[in-house]
Amino acid sequence: MELLNEVLDNIGELDSETMEKAQRRLDSLTKPLGSLGRLENIIVQFAGISKNFMPKIDQKKIIIMCSDNGVFEEGVSSCPKDVTSSVTQNFTRGFTAVNVLSKNAGADVIVVDIGVDDNIVNDKILNRKIRRGTDNIAKGPAMTREEAIHAIEVGIDIVKSQKEAGVNLLGTGEMGICNTTTSSAITAVLTGADVKDITGIGSGLSNSAFLNKVSVIEKAIIVNKPDKNDPLDVLCKLGGFDIAGLVGCFLGAAYYRIPIFIDGFISAVAALVATRLNSKVSDFILPSHGSSEPGSDLVLKELGKPAFLNLGMRVGEGTGAALAFCIVDAAYAAYTKMGTFDDAKIEQYVPQD
Amino acid sequence: MELLNEVLDNIGELDSETMEKAQRRLDSLTKPLGSLGRLENIIVQFAGISKNFMPKIDQKKIIIMCSDNGVFEEGVSSCPKDVTSSVTQNFTRGFTAVNVLSKNAGADVIVVDIGVDDNIVNDKILNRKIRRGTDNIAKGPAMTREEAIHAIEVGIDIVKSQKEAGVNLLGTGEMGICNTTTSSAITAVLTGADVKDITGIGSGLSNSAFLNKVSVIEKAIIVNKPDKNDPLDVLCKLGGFDIAGLVGCFLGAAYYRIPIFIDGFISAVAALVATRLNSKVSDFILPSHGSSEPGSDLVLKELGKPAFLNLGMRVGEGTGAALAFCIVDAAYAAYTKMGTFDDAKIEQYVPQD
Repeated sequence: MELLNEVLDNIGELDSETMEKAQRRLDSLTKPLGSLGRLENIIVQFAGISKNFMPKIDQKKIIIMCSDNGVFEEGVSSCPKDVTSSVTQNFTRGFTAVNVLSKNAGADVIVVDIGVDDNIVNDKILNRKIRRGTDNIAKGPAMTREEAIHAIEVGIDIVKSQKEAGVNLLGTGEMGICNTTTSSAITAVLTGADVKDITGIGSGLSNSAFLNKVSVIEKAIIVNKPDKNDPLDVLCKLGGFDIAGLVGCFLGAAYYRIPIFIDGFISAVAALVATRLNSKVSDFILPSHGSSEPGSDLVLKELGKPAFLNLGMRVGEGTGAALAFCIVDAAYAAYTKMGTFDDAKIEQYVPQD
Repeated sequence: MELLNEVLDNIGELDSETMEKAQRRLDSLTKPLGSLGRLENIIVQFAGISKNFMPKIDQKKIIIMCSDNGVFEEGVSSCPKDVTSSVTQNFTRGFTAVNVLSKNAGADVIVVDIGVDDNIVNDKILNRKIRRGTDNIAKGPAMTREEAIHAIEVGIDIVKSQKEAGVNLLGTGEMGICNTTTSSAITAVLTGADVKDITGIGSGLSNSAFLNKVSVIEKAIIVNKPDKNDPLDVLCKLGGFDIAGLVGCFLGAAYYRIPIFIDGFISAVAALVATRLNSKVSDFILPSHGSSEPGSDLVLKELGKPAFLNLGMRVGEGTGAALAFCIVDAAYAAYTKMGTFDDAKIEQYVPQD
């Protein structure tokens, strides 16, 4: 709790002076003012975060939080439970979607076992297991409040080590069978939305299994009576270790001043919890894609961060964050390699009356 | 007209057998079925276009059609007219937005002078000038029907030479002061939308200049009486040589079976004209970003091709197409480098009842 409080009490502001300097450079480039749109916003935000007018973006990492969820026993997923462990281990073999898309974007992945229900022995996986999966939210809280804080602090600690290693761009990812169930439950409580409107098919569900998922989530909320004004209460009662770990990543990224990208629905829910703990965190977070999970758009809207990419993806793992890294590279190329109006020997394009 | 008719009469279908084969491979990869969303659609479409189960995507080009518009004299742009010529020439110097973003995506640009109102002498620019700018649409037709056909055939011919050079991925781009005016005029006629709803600020306009732009477009439609059921009539009366050249690029890409990306609003309007000339062209076209020009979303909706990227950009030049190439690379990496369920030794994720 000490680390969490230290972080929550010391998240800073974006540096407005550096942001203005970056915007001035953008305005000097040979294009209509502001016409690179959100590519410009990315650069300005990165400048404000790093307090560097020419922010370095050369070490990119995606942190993948992996864990199991006790709600599996309610039949809310189409996958066998051991897929969590299998896929977690496959992340170290280089051929999963996030591996390939990260490599394509010049990024590495960090695989974290924060609560997989298996005895994983793999030195490429960071073992920060809280315990082997949460409890069934349909019957009681997923975890204790202390466990939630512990999981958040794991996330903060991992960001700290990345900062020390020179990482200057972070993405989030997760793997955990049933984590769209926990994410929908948290979303319903934090936004007040109807469960059926923000619940989807996860990795694939028949219609009857989908209806069961909705009623399990509704039951979890009734059984646990989470206090919507206490994000930690909502998180520990309805969340998972993966989500809690990602909350820590968002908080840590803000504290250590590293831009961090949301991935899909689960990751966006973690970002929402983080911003409810401290609204200043929002300045350090960027969206990536709008997942095809129906809660995704609502949570991004609540965060005020519309998706950059609309690809109808629902893989998770950090795949959307990896794709967003390509946009960052493009923005950075434009910022650093475009000519100025002086180079081009033409007048700046400015509105005339 | 002979070339245009040959092309319009001989645009083929996507090869469904190859598409099914590509989808089967996608379904064998270690991810929930269909969960890579539109990345999967891109691969399947490319397979259907190339009739190759493993389509080659290693030679990417963006064709930039540059020309002037007579409607400039109505005060519809914030830019001096000679910006068209300056920027067209700057495309060969490597520092414009599309240069930098194309290079970032591993693509080259082809700069075409199809009607710049200047005597450009630059051997890096393809001189296919119809004439030095169109006539003022507020007073009469932009060009003759014959000129429109000529400009379309220039586009087809350029795609032919790209096909012969081994290019297997095309993007579209343009440069032409006042071409959001011509694009909005065509959009209003082809979609029936109100001019004020689909007109924007282009490279930047004050409110009074914006209102003037709307009334100029309304006047152009009244003066020219274009036949909305005759796309060539609409194009020659309200368009520009840049738009007509891009119509030819879309038609040529379909005829020569090369996937082609829309860029922003102007390019999308050209795609709309092309699909109105032959609806089969649509199968060969992909969207890129949703421009901040208000007509952009409507035209993409009319085309049934929602944007992949929402970046609020309004540069034109081919910048959005260049960004979309990064998504293609990611899709192709996933398709060719991900492991299969056999590799992963896990069961396929399929919905259970």
